[in-house]
This record gives sequence, C-alpha cells and structure tokens, in this order.
Amino acid sequence: MPRPSGRKENELRSVAIVPNVNKYAMGSCLVKWGDTHVLCTATIEDKAPSWMKAQGKKGGWLTAEYGMVPHAGNIRKDRDAIKGKQDGRSVEIQRLIGRALRTVVDLHQMDNKTIKIDCDVLQADGGTRTASITGGYVALKLAIMRALTEKKLIKDPLIGQVAAVSCGIVQNTPVLDLDYVEDSNAGTDANFVMTADGQLIEVQGSAEGAPFAVEEFQKLLALAQKGIAELIEKQNAALKS
Amino acid sequence: MPRPSGRKENELRSVAIVPNVNKYAMGSCLVKWGDTHVLCTATIEDKAPSWMKAQGKKGGWLTAEYGMVPHAGNIRKDRDAIKGKQDGRSVEIQRLIGRALRTVVDLHQMDNKTIKIDCDVLQADGGTRTASITGGYVALKLAIMRALTEKKLIKDPLIGQVAAVSCGIVQNTPVLDLDYVEDSNAGTDANFVMTADGQLIEVQGSAEGAPFAVEEFQKLLALAQKGIAELIEKQNAALKS
Amino acid sequence: MPRPSGRKENELRSVAIVPNVNKYAMGSCLVKWGDTHVLCTATIEDKAPSWMKAQGKKGGWLTAEYGMVPHAGNIRKDRDAIKGKQDGRSVEIQRLIGRALRTVVDLHQMDNKTIKIDCDVLQADGGTRTASITGGYVALKLAIMRALTEKKLIKDPLIGQVAAVSCGIVQNTPVLDLDYVEDSNAGTDANFVMTADGQLIEVQGSAEGAPFAVEEFQKLLALAQKGIAELIEKQNAALKS
Amino acid sequence: MPRPSGRKENELRSVAIVPNVNKYAMGSCLVKWGDTHVLCTATIEDKAPSWMKAQGKKGGWLTAEYGMVPHAGNIRKDRDAIKGKQDGRSVEIQRLIGRALRTVVDLHQMDNKTIKIDCDVLQADGGTRTASITGGYVALKLAIMRALTEKKLIKDPLIGQVAAVSCGIVQNTPVLDLDYVEDSNAGTDANFVMTADGQLIEVQGSAEGAPFAVEEFQKLLALAQKGIAELIEKQNAALKS
Amino acid sequence: MPRPSGRKENELRSVAIVPNVNKYAMGSCLVKWGDTHVLCTATIEDKAPSWMKAQGKKGGWLTAEYGMVPHAGNIRKDRDAIKGKQDGRSVEIQRLIGRALRTVVDLHQMDNKTIKIDCDVLQADGGTRTASITGGYVALKLAIMRALTEKKLIKDPLIGQVAAVSCGIVQNTPVLDLDYVEDSNAGTDANFVMTADGQLIEVQGSAEGAPFAVEEFQKLLALAQKGIAELIEKQNAALKS
Amino acid sequence: MPRPSGRKENELRSVAIVPNVNKYAMGSCLVKWGDTHVLCTATIEDKAPSWMKAQGKKGGWLTAEYGMVPHAGNIRKDRDAIKGKQDGRSVEIQRLIGRALRTVVDLHQMDNKTIKIDCDVLQADGGTRTASITGGYVALKLAIMRALTEKKLIKDPLIGQVAAVSCGIVQNTPVLDLDYVEDSNAGTDANFVMTADGQLIEVQGSAEGAPFAVEEFQKLLALAQKGIAELIEKQNAALKS
Repeated sequence: MPRPSGRKENELRSVAIVPNVNKYAMGSCLVKWGDTHVLCTATIEDKAPSWMKAQGKKGGWLTAEYGMVPHAGNIRKDRDAIKGKQDGRSVEIQRLIGRALRTVVDLHQMDNKTIKIDCDVLQADGGTRTASITGGYVALKLAIMRALTEKKLIKDPLIGQVAAVSCGIVQNTPVLDLDYVEDSNAGTDANFVMTADGQLIEVQGSAEGAPFAVEEFQKLLALAQKGIAELIEKQNAALKS
Repeated sequence: MPRPSGRKENELRSVAIVPNVNKYAMGSCLVKWGDTHVLCTATIEDKAPSWMKAQGKKGGWLTAEYGMVPHAGNIRKDRDAIKGKQDGRSVEIQRLIGRALRTVVDLHQMDNKTIKIDCDVLQADGGTRTASITGGYVALKLAIMRALTEKKLIKDPLIGQVAAVSCGIVQNTPVLDLDYVEDSNAGTDANFVMTADGQLIEVQGSAEGAPFAVEEFQKLLALAQKGIAELIEKQNAALKS
Repeated sequence: MPRPSGRKENELRSVAIVPNVNKYAMGSCLVKWGDTHVLCTATIEDKAPSWMKAQGKKGGWLTAEYGMVPHAGNIRKDRDAIKGKQDGRSVEIQRLIGRALRTVVDLHQMDNKTIKIDCDVLQADGGTRTASITGGYVALKLAIMRALTEKKLIKDPLIGQVAAVSCGIVQNTPVLDLDYVEDSNAGTDANFVMTADGQLIEVQGSAEGAPFAVEEFQKLLALAQKGIAELIEKQNAALKS
Repeated sequence: MPRPSGRKENELRSVAIVPNVNKYAMGSCLVKWGDTHVLCTATIEDKAPSWMKAQGKKGGWLTAEYGMVPHAGNIRKDRDAIKGKQDGRSVEIQRLIGRALRTVVDLHQMDNKTIKIDCDVLQADGGTRTASITGGYVALKLAIMRALTEKKLIKDPLIGQVAAVSCGIVQNTPVLDLDYVEDSNAGTDANFVMTADGQLIEVQGSAEGAPFAVEEFQKLLALAQKGIAELIEKQNAALKS
Repeated sequence: MPRPSGRKENELRSVAIVPNVNKYAMGSCLVKWGDTHVLCTATIEDKAPSWMKAQGKKGGWLTAEYGMVPHAGNIRKDRDAIKGKQDGRSVEIQRLIGRALRTVVDLHQMDNKTIKIDCDVLQADGGTRTASITGGYVALKLAIMRALTEKKLIKDPLIGQVAAVSCGIVQNTPVLDLDYVEDSNAGTDANFVMTADGQLIEVQGSAEGAPFAVEEFQKLLALAQKGIAELIEKQNAALKS
Repeated sequence: MPRPSGRKENELRSVAIVPNVNKYAMGSCLVKWGDTHVLCTATIEDKAPSWMKAQGKKGGWLTAEYGMVPHAGNIRKDRDAIKGKQDGRSVEIQRLIGRALRTVVDLHQMDNKTIKIDCDVLQADGGTRTASITGGYVALKLAIMRALTEKKLIKDPLIGQVAAVSCGIVQNTPVLDLDYVEDSNAGTDANFVMTADGQLIEVQGSAEGAPFAVEEFQKLLALAQKGIAELIEKQNAALKS
C-alpha cells in the first residue's frame, strides 16, 4: 500500500531550513518541511524570569511559545488573541518545545538571561511540533553564536543538539514523518525528540485508535532514529550556510 | 541506595480507590495513592459538544478537566479561576486524561452524549496525572454501569480498561511510581498509560536532566507493566465493592 | 409539617469537623455538615498584600477564596478556571468569609503577613457559606497555633471565635440550618455570623419570595443563637482532638 | 458628638430623584443623594435569559448591573473594562440590587422578557448601593408604566415598592444614612431594603470593627424604618412629576 | 434639503460645557453637545507609566480612557466590564483622544506624572469622540490650573488648546457636526482635531459609502475650521466661569 | 538632507507582492514592502456574522484581523494570545483594514457570506497597516476570483480597487512611504487609502510632534496620489502572474 505522498516508509519529506530570515531576532530560521512552514526566532533577554527570582533560583531559563496564523491549516481558526487565550493544543506543544530545548542548554551558564523561542506556524501539513523543535534548535544555536560573538554571553551554554520527528502506524504499517493526511488516519502517532548522538529526550506515543503493542512502539523508535540522523544533518547544513 | 520511602524499586505506594464518594455524580471515586489524593467524578450529559455538531460529526465525546485546590501542593498556588485561566500544566494534563480514556470508549455508541471526567487534586505528592487516569477510569466505569441500569445508555460503550503509572530514573536506578521527592530528583520521568491486557495507550518520557538511552527506556517500560497490572487489580477491587 | 430530613425546627444537621487533613497547609480541616463537605485550608504568607503597601498601610491582612469542584452540586457546573472568571455567587461568598474572619483577627499584630483561607466545596447540600466560615475559623486557629509554636508569629492575633449558620422560613415555619431542599423552598433565607459570646458579626437576610416582617426576622435570630452555640462547641472539640 | 455633616442622628441627606434623564431607556432617573450621584436606567428586552430557556423555566427575569466611572470616588480606580473583569465589590452590589428588585416583580407576568437595571455611579460619597436600589425602583416603575402604555406589557408585574437605606454605629451612636466619612469610621454598617408597607426584603449588617449586640441591631432597624418611609415619599414625588 | 434638526449646513448643535462637576477629580466637566452628554475628568498621578520606566524614558505621559454607560445609545449594549474587554470602537476612540491631547502637553515638563483623562458617555447622539476631546481639553486645563495653584506642578506644561468636530457629506451636501441620524446616513464622515490657531492635529476621514473626491474633503476641512473656532470660544467661556 | 534609505522624497520602497503563498486559503499573498513583510489571507465563510442575523440585516460582511509575530519588530513583544487580549494598536489597525476593504465590496451581493482578511506581520519596518490594506486587497481579489470560478459566488461583489500608503513630514520635508527610522522621527504622519481612480477612502493624519498646517497636509496628499498609482500597478502585476 503506497503512502499518499509516494514516499517510502522510512523517508522524510523534503526539509529545507533557511537561516537568518528575520532582521531583528538574535537567531531565526524558516523551516519548510514539506508543506509545513514554521518561522522560528530566538531572543535572549537580559533578565531571568520573575518566578526564578521569587523562588531564589540561580541561573537562567529557556521558554518557548507556539502559535498558528489563522489560516495555517485547511480550515481557518479564530485568532487566539481575540478568543482571549491560547487553545489547549498550543499550550501543550509549546511546553514540549521548551522542555526539549532546555535539555541541551546548561541553564547555570545563563545567569540572569531568558531565552525565548517563538515558533509561528505559517502553514500546517502535519508535524508542526517536530518542525518547531528542529527549527527552534537552529534559531537557538544561531542566537547563541551571535551572543558569543557580541560578548553578550561569555561561555557557550549549549551542551547538545536536538531534533524531532513523528512516526506512526498507518494502515498497520509503521512509517516515518506523517503528513496531515496520514496523521488523520494513523492508528498510533508518536513524536520523538532525540540528540545528535541518538539519546532520547522526549518520547510521546498515543493510541489514536486501538492500543498498540510494545513491539510496534519499538519499530517506530527505529524509524525515528533514522529520521533524526538525517534532520541533524539538515540542521548542520543550515548552520554552515 | 534505598528509596526515600523505603519502597523497593518495583513497588507501588499504597493505593486505595474509594468508590461512590459523591452523592450527585453518575460515577465517582477518591483515589488515595500514597499522599496524593484525587477526587474523580464522571458526568454523562445528553448532548454532543457543539464543535461536533458544527462539523457534522456523529457519535459522542469524552473530555476531561483537571484542577488542584490552591494548597494541594507544598506551596499554595493562586486559584486558576482568579488568575482567569488554567495554567499550562493543567491544560496539558487534562488533555492527556481525555485522550487516554477516549481510547477505551467506543464513541459511536455514545450518540449525542458527552462524558465529562473531572479530576480535582486535593493533595499532591507526585503522580497526580496517573492517579487521575487510574481513578478517572473507575469513575467512568461506575457512571456507565449506572447509566446502563437507568437505561440512559442502551449499549455499553466501554471497550477496554485503562490505568496509568509513572516510572523514572533516580540516581541511575529505574524505579516505579515516583513520589514528589523522587520526581524532583529524577533524571528521567516517564508516564505510561496501558490497558488491562498490556497494550500501550500513551507513553510519555522526558529527560529532566541528561538525555536517556533507549535501553533505559525499556527498563522503565518493564516496571510500568508490573505496576499497571497491580493497578488494574485495585480498580477491579474498587468496582466490586 | 415535618422537615424533609425529619429534624426538629431548631436542630442542626450532624456536623463533623476533621482537623489537619492536608499535609502541607499551616492549618486545615474538612467540614462534613450533613451532605455538605468543605475542605478549608489556612496559609500564612510572609508579606502584606501589594495594595496595602501601595496605600502605605501598616499591619497584615486576611483574605478568603471560595470555590466548588465542578460536580459539587446536583448539576455539574463548568469549571470557573475554564470560563475564565469566578461566578458572581462565589465572589459574594468569599467576600463574606473574609469579612467574617477578619473581625476576629487583630490585623495590627500581623505586620507583613497575609493569611489566606481557602474553602473548596467538595459536595454541596445547602449552607456552604456557613460551613466555610465555621470550618475556616478552625483552619485559621490551627494555622495560628502552629505559627506561634514555630515562632513565625510572636503574639496571638486571634481576638475572638466565630461560627455561622443559616436559618429560614419554610412553609411559614422558622427553622434552623436549611439543607438544599429546604433552601430551594424557603420564603426567607438568612445567614448569621456570630461570636462565641453571642455578638453579631454579620447578618444577611433575604426575602426569596414575599417580604418578611421584623418579628419573623427576630425568630430566625433566636434560632441562630442556639445553633451558633452548638457549632462553637463542635469547633472546640475539633481543636482539642 | 455632632455628625460631620451636622445632621441629626435620624436625618437623611437631601435626596433628589430626577426622572427621565435618558432619552433612549424605557425608564431612567438620576439620584442625587447628598454627594452620591447614581444614574439608573431600566431596559425591557423581548427575550428571557438563555439560562431560563436551557432549564425550561417559564416567565421572565430581572437583573441588575452596577458600575462606577473611574473617578467616582476620591481616588481614581482603573476602569473595570480594561482590567478585564468587574471587581468583587461591584459583583456583590449588583447581585443585591437584582435580588431586591426581583422581590417586587411578579416574574410570571413577564413571560419572555428580561428587565435590565443599570446603576452607574457618577460620584460616590457613601451609600451607592442603597441609592442604586432606591433609584433603580424608580427607573423600573417608569419603564413598566411606559411599556404598559405602549402595550409592550399587558399586565402590570409590579407587586410592591422598594427602597433602601444604610445605618451604622458611629462612635457608639446609631445613625441613619452614612456618608463616606461616617462609613469609614463606622463600627457597624448595615443596609436595609424594605417595602412601602414596612416589610423587610434584605438585611445586611456587618461588624466593621468590634462585633455588635442584638440590641444595637434593633436600633439600626428602627432608624431604617424611618428613613425608608421618607424615601418612599421621595420616589412617589419623582414618579408624579 | 433641510437637515433633520433644522440646522444650517455650517451650524453646530448647542454646546454647553459645565465645569467642575466632580468633587474629587483635579479637573472635570460635563459636555452637553446637543443630546450627546459626556462626563470628562482629569487626574494627575504622581508617577510615570511603568513602560516609560522600563524603557528608561524621562518625562511624563498623558493617556485617555473612553467608555459608555450601557444605555448611552438607542439600544442597550452589554457592559464592557462584564464582557471582559473593551470593544474595538472604544479602544480606537480612546487612542485618538490620548494622541490629540498629548500634542498640546509638553511631556518633558511632566516628569514622573501621568495625566489620565476619562471620558464617560452618559448619552450618545453622534459625535461622542469629538465631544470627548473638546471636553477632555477643558478637564485637562482645569486640572493643570489646580495643580499649579496647589504647587503640584511648578511649570505649566500646556502648550496649546485643542478642540474637535465632525463633518460629513449627507445627501451630497457637506455639513458640520453630524448628529446620530445624519451620521447613520452620511456618505463620508470626517473628524478634525485642531488647535486654537487653526493648525491640524488629527484628521480622519472615512468613506462610509462611496469613495470621496479630494475637493469634497477640502470642503469638510473648511467647515471644520469654522466649527473649531466656535468650540474654542465655548471652552474659554467654560474655563472663565 | 538625504533620506536614511537614500530614496527620493517621492519614492516608494521596493514592493513585491507574491500571490498564492498559502495552499489552503481562498486567496493569499505575501507583501514584501522593503523590510516590512505581511502575510495576507482571505477566507470566505458561508454565513453572515451573528450580529447581522440578530439585527435582521441582509447581505454579507467583510472583517479583518491584524497581528504580529512576537519578534516582528526590533524588540520582541509578548504574544497577544498569552496576554489574553489584542493590544490597542492592533485593534485600531484591523478596524481600519476592514473599513477600507468593505468600501470596495458590494455587501448586498454577499448574502450569507463573511469574508475574513487576516494580515499577519512577519517583519515590521514601518507601514504595516498600509502594506496590510494593499496586500489585503490582492488576497481579497484572488479569493473572489476563485469563488466565482468555483461557483461559490455567482456575481462579482468587487466594485473597486484599493491601495494604501503613508506619508509624513520628516525634518520639515514631506516624504512618501516612511520606513521605521523615518516614522520614529516624523513630525506628522499620515495614512491614505485610495481607489485606483484616485478617490479617497480613508485619510488619517496625526501630528506626532507639532501641529501641522493645512498646506502641509495638501502636500502629503499629493505624494500619496503618486504612490497609490504605483501600488495599484504592483497589485495588478501580482494578480496577472
């Protein structure tokens, strides 16, 4: 049974990461991952969050925010700012992005700094959260390199490289990198966040339909490992350009 | 290195599930899982959500809400209702509870019904989300049994049984069922939602400190399988009483 | 005409006050007043409210918050945190609880402290505001005793003891302590907050149906005096245990 | 000890009720009660509230809203609309106004109608809630008279007349109709809502400082009866003009 | 074709500006501009806005807020405070009022001060924004005069006088000062804010129906110049009284 | 005195309008106007707004929404969705966009349709509102052409073509199309919305510093006429591609 896109089971969509697309942000990139387009920017602010001060904590912080323009998806959604709050899905996704990127930053090296990663989805065709993490890393790395150059940071706080990809079971077949059509029909959907050296940072697997067996989950994990390795290369290519 | 509670590595805290604690709800229970206490109620409303009607979808829905009383944890937190919105963590947790329980309900058998699962944490000592899912299932089952008896439902929509538990790597040792002290010090924290027959419904693993290896994740999964089996028995005992 | 519960006209429901039910709060109790169950906690924070500082006021403050879990009553209500604001009734009740308890605290002895009383209704069968005040006093007393022991307070700021009860005119008969069924049918409903020595702190009487005569109000007051005396004893018993 | 205003203990401030001050509302008046100025309007809408429909209730409803312009009081307060919610005091007051006026309307005669009473305080010098109720009645009566004339109502739903006044104990002396200076210094503050024939509709007494004795409360009640009788006459004069 | 009000094409409605209507505000007036009634108050607070401090800006600020009582217009509108936010029109108008009045204040002379202009519409019959600016200036001037007298300001920061008027093209005829009936039927609607010496501060013209020619706009401008000159005199008369 | 960008006084920045950049929206374009980048989409929904139904109005409606990604400008701003409301500037701008585009749509031809124009600023360097109107027209035209092709609309409701540009007085010189640096230093700032045949739709001029003379305003108008003519050509080129 061929995939709707004609891709092989372990084949990523085409992924282009265009660095430095924003003239103001410390770091930025536009991720074009198939028809999913995410604008990622990284800002370094010269103060720690107020809750850290209130709790007497040392070091800095990294936080992420995620949003979609109203017609990013196939049906226009009302603007969160007008509804007066973020929808639950956005909240869940931005917490994931923040957790994933914090893992590769030594926050103790970031005293009195807050890094803010903004991921704004301009067009969504599945996999926006994994594109946000993968692009968020590039924006983060660019921002830190610039801050080191400009002496706004003395020591590099980055301690790892991170990318993310989704896998799923579609019509009983484990496949890599679901697009929207596949995602809508997947029995199981899993997101993997991994480091350049193949360690796990975050694993999230959900039965969308029937529960899944442990063996199936292992197959998804193997597919993810292959995909992450390719994404790490894409990131590196973007950072060199 | 002993656990702070003196438990063995694969030992759950004491778990008591007291059924029918609320005189109004269709189904309810109080989960006393160590010092974590969660009040779970299940309500069956005679209409589908408005978004289903708007999208022309058939069947019913199940949704969950999660909250904490202000002094559930060791530091009092401001009341969400006064801050004007749920915090991000609550949003993330209630989405997980809803997804987990929807997997064991055949929503096509629930035409024009909405089941609402409320999980209110009265005291928190780690593992509130897994206690909410485990207790939420009991409240759900009780509500459906009563609805069948009262002829508010004709056919039983339940197609599985679900429980949840956390595992983590604390001081390099994989352990089952983290309490708050362990959770605060865990290098890796994972939540597993599984069915009575050992299938996976949701897997969420996060590196809190360093990334973790695939093999470590396998060990956590094995611990979870043992814990889930015991929790399924606790649920059954509560349902029989 | 007997009361639905079979109680005598001047008879309280059974009232149990279980102290120290929360392992984290400075003071706490669970009030089981018939089928009305309210969890009360008292927190002492080491700063005065920001509005006191802004106005240059000395001393401390006591404030109360009131909430209900969604299915506390016989019909599930949407969670305030999701609606984005407290409902008007909750606002009105928590202002009453705060006023009542402030009257027995010498705020000048509380310099740079804020006491927060949280009253969370787990099950509601009428009289939640009077149960909240009555239990709120117990939580407050326990918190102050502990703060004195722990030297967080030097001098006891408590200058009185307070309890509250409702009375009403049901089918032309004045009765003590309305439960939900009676409250729904009461022509007049009144809440009395009084001290241990029989002084008034707050009186609120409302004609739910027809206006009421001054003489009727006097009868309700007499019933309240009897009920308050009994509640003061219940409080003292709970505090001794 | 003379009152700051030089008034006798049982003397009201000067009260002028100017009817029909708004060219659009069905009924309106401006209450000038000493330096307290409240604009009251009454609107009759041709539908019952949505919650009545949802609950299958017949008849109509009356609701009240209360607000202050930002500089109504001696210190400017931020605009509720900008803060994003009404303050708790406004919520409490508008619930009182609504309850008080509903008592003199036969809602069964108001099928599919909602009356909205708006009380906007232009200047506040104590007693805004009692001025709102007293003026709200006049706006309500004018609106109903006009609706009867215009055949928008067939039968008069008004079944009573209502006014309100505050009393308090200032420097151990019970006095009628506190202005702001007295209110700030009162040991006890009470609001009475009564009908033209001397029945009680709402009684609210609060110890601002020390608790008060039952006998003191009786004296306040007697003062209120005198004040209400005079206010009823003021209302009638305004309605005749 | 006569105007509905019988006015000449270049004739203002009757405009009365009653100064000092609020006993607490530093400056205040009630503008009665035909049937449009706006209460304007000016407050001088002893601190600069927090955003100025955050950006390290010197000097002071002037800001304006605009609101309507619910039944100001011919159909009652829900109270902004209850809806939880200002409507877009109010936001747009208050930004205009603030910009217009800031132009005649030398903010560098206002170090650590914030002037707040509140414009509350009690009755609306067209032209509420121009009435707010015209009355807002009077309240501002009165507040500054009093602050100079009371030595709260050392040097007069006012550097100009400002008034505002609307013009429009109604049935192909340019007319001055639209009331609500004309405004509803105008093809083009323009608001002009000008100084006492005939300079422009703000010009806003909108095609409500068909686009308009540059020549038409010139005619509206000429009408506005005449109207502004008369309004400046009304302001001066009010300030002298 | 040369302009910072080296442009002539009557010279636009380079303007590129890339059509059809969004795969889901009925119409879309990306406006690259110097360093100001705005993504515009147009959606046609098959229902009139609820307020039109409530007021019994026939025809359809067009509304616009405006937002910025957090780091669109030179300083990152907090996300509106997280602050819980749009900022006042966004509200003002989106109302302008909506008014401008409604003028060229015959809403009576749009029965039971709502057109939504979304303008999301990806990068801001001055002139975002005029870029939004100019690009919004292109997205609107594309959406209507597609709707006519797909028979979702029977008759073309477009009755004009509209573009917008800003002008200002910078160092006493009137110039066309201010970028951010010029805008920050402009004494007067004006926005003009005009049709393809040189009629005015909206004129907004503000004195940022000193008031301005009528003659200066005329010069800005002349510059705008030149700029608009060029922008109309850019729109036409984009629509032909």
